Amino acid sequence: MASGADGSALELLRRAEDGLLLYGITPPSLTTAPGRADDVAQATLARLESVELDGLIIYDVDAESDRSAESRPFPFMPMMDPADFLDRHLSGWTRPVVVYRAVGKYTEADLRRWLTDVDADRVLTVLVGAASRHQAVQTRLTDAYRLHAGLDRRPPIGGVCIAERHVGSGAEHRRMLSKQEAGCDFFVSQVCYDLDHIRDLLSDYAYLCRDEGMVARPVILTLAPCGSMKTLEFMSWLGIDVPRWLRTELTRSRDPLTESYDQCLTNAGALISFCRRLGLPFGINVESLTNRKVEIEASVDLAREIRELLH
Amino acid sequence: MASGADGSALELLRRAEDGLLLYGITPPSLTTAPGRADDVAQATLARLESVELDGLIIYDVDAESDRSAESRPFPFMPMMDPADFLDRHLSGWTRPVVVYRAVGKYTEADLRRWLTDVDADRVLTVLVGAASRHQAVQTRLTDAYRLHAGLDRRPPIGGVCIAERHVGSGAEHRRMLSKQEAGCDFFVSQVCYDLDHIRDLLSDYAYLCRDEGMVARPVILTLAPCGSMKTLEFMSWLGIDVPRWLRTELTRSRDPLTESYDQCLTNAGALISFCRRLGLPFGINVESLTNRKVEIEASVDLAREIRELLH
Repeated sequence: MASGADGSALELLRRAEDGLLLYGITPPSLTTAPGRADDVAQATLARLESVELDGLIIYDVDAESDRSAESRPFPFMPMMDPADFLDRHLSGWTRPVVVYRAVGKYTEADLRRWLTDVDADRVLTVLVGAASRHQAVQTRLTDAYRLHAGLDRRPPIGGVCIAERHVGSGAEHRRMLSKQEAGCDFFVSQVCYDLDHIRDLLSDYAYLCRDEGMVARPVILTLAPCGSMKTLEFMSWLGIDVPRWLRTELTRSRDPLTESYDQCLTNAGALISFCRRLGLPFGINVESLTNRKVEIEASVDLAREIRELLH
Repeated sequence: MASGADGSALELLRRAEDGLLLYGITPPSLTTAPGRADDVAQATLARLESVELDGLIIYDVDAESDRSAESRPFPFMPMMDPADFLDRHLSGWTRPVVVYRAVGKYTEADLRRWLTDVDADRVLTVLVGAASRHQAVQTRLTDAYRLHAGLDRRPPIGGVCIAERHVGSGAEHRRMLSKQEAGCDFFVSQVCYDLDHIRDLLSDYAYLCRDEGMVARPVILTLAPCGSMKTLEFMSWLGIDVPRWLRTELTRSRDPLTESYDQCLTNAGALISFCRRLGLPFGINVESLTNRKVEIEASVDLAREIRELLH
């Protein structure tokens, strides 16, 4: 469970042996007035108060218009910078927090300034590259890693890992090891619905580390309920694999939210057992894929039930 | 649970709404002396006595040398005819029994005689076609179905369903419906290790029946522990899909039997929930893939634990 003390970023990663619980949020849109952003932050913290989280994740959402030829099911709204949202509105949150950085959006100078100034005892970051090779970027992911590695005092950094990429390439576990060698202290997965695909990646990564004499880093596994066909369509757009039978159940069900919720809870149980058996440090991260109230509330309930599974 | 009375073949299929439990055996080799075959039968029944089975399955094993270009990991031994083994040695078994018939081995006249003479109140049969198109056969599967359909008094027949075939063709559920239209009253799966592949097939079959206004037939799902690398190799030879992470676990484990046993039990629980949720009549069939004592004993223990899950 969450430590009594608020805990430092490094202590958070150490406690991943037992399994962490995180919750992922997206900042409000860029045009939100400061007072309204405070209200959003307060409402979020109030919802999460009873969940005993080990940490919060704040995403940095990019338009990713190059991701797919299909149009984005939910139109992209430019969002407040996650670091700004944390600094200006989330002062009520005193535990560790993982701030995403879509590095292509920032100049090297901006990134360096933020990485240097940030409270490295409490803030971790996940550096994310472009969604496609064709995206114009200000800083490339490899340059961001190099920049981070050269700093004297630096926050722990994480990398993204994607089980769906492993299905095709069979090399995502090697990519994780390379990121680790470039400085990654942990990983966060894309939303997982295909349990075998994510277990394949975790297994290949854990045994690769063992065979190479490396210490496996904590892998944070993301789960999110799906309350509507539009959310399911958005998941496809994001490249999330959903087993065919489950897609059918969600499509045919009168209550896809409950179906997907139950499946996420089952998957959480299976992943907790799997990581413990494998001796892989891990965490579960819960999020809502949309800002729909029913999905947000279901995600908070899911996090609360997963806390019980982790005990 | 098993009915107090021994039950008829038709009653067996009716009770599949709640989930049946079967156990699959292979007859002793053709060269076994009658006295020794009696001993084998008695030992089998003694082992199974405490399991509360609803029925027994007796396989009809063919060489299947056309199945794969790879050599068979366990050399093929011609086996006693399953119907002969039942008649001559298994008189101690009074509940329903499913006798497999590899129809290619028999002439139409032989098949007709057996189908006519068999105790159709207690014996069900599964008609199996050739493993490949190149195999020389005496009777083709479609002719066997036609022959069966023309009989006045006939045993319930089942067909084989293979989730692995569905992965490639996406049409195994339609093939099941065609077999059903040709007279199949139930289906028996190949050994299942890939839970999503079998759930994809069950889901597609159940919804196809619903959409076409047909009543779905019971599907008997086969599980078998795997106690050694050689058994795992045999499973590959048989075309059984094993998720990559599980193959790694079995390969790296000091105790693959326990690993695979635990996985079979987990899969049984998941399949029972899945079929019940889907409203699909079903059964679980447990077998040992080899005649190794530890695998046979594990399979009997597994059946006993699955009985608890079914209650």
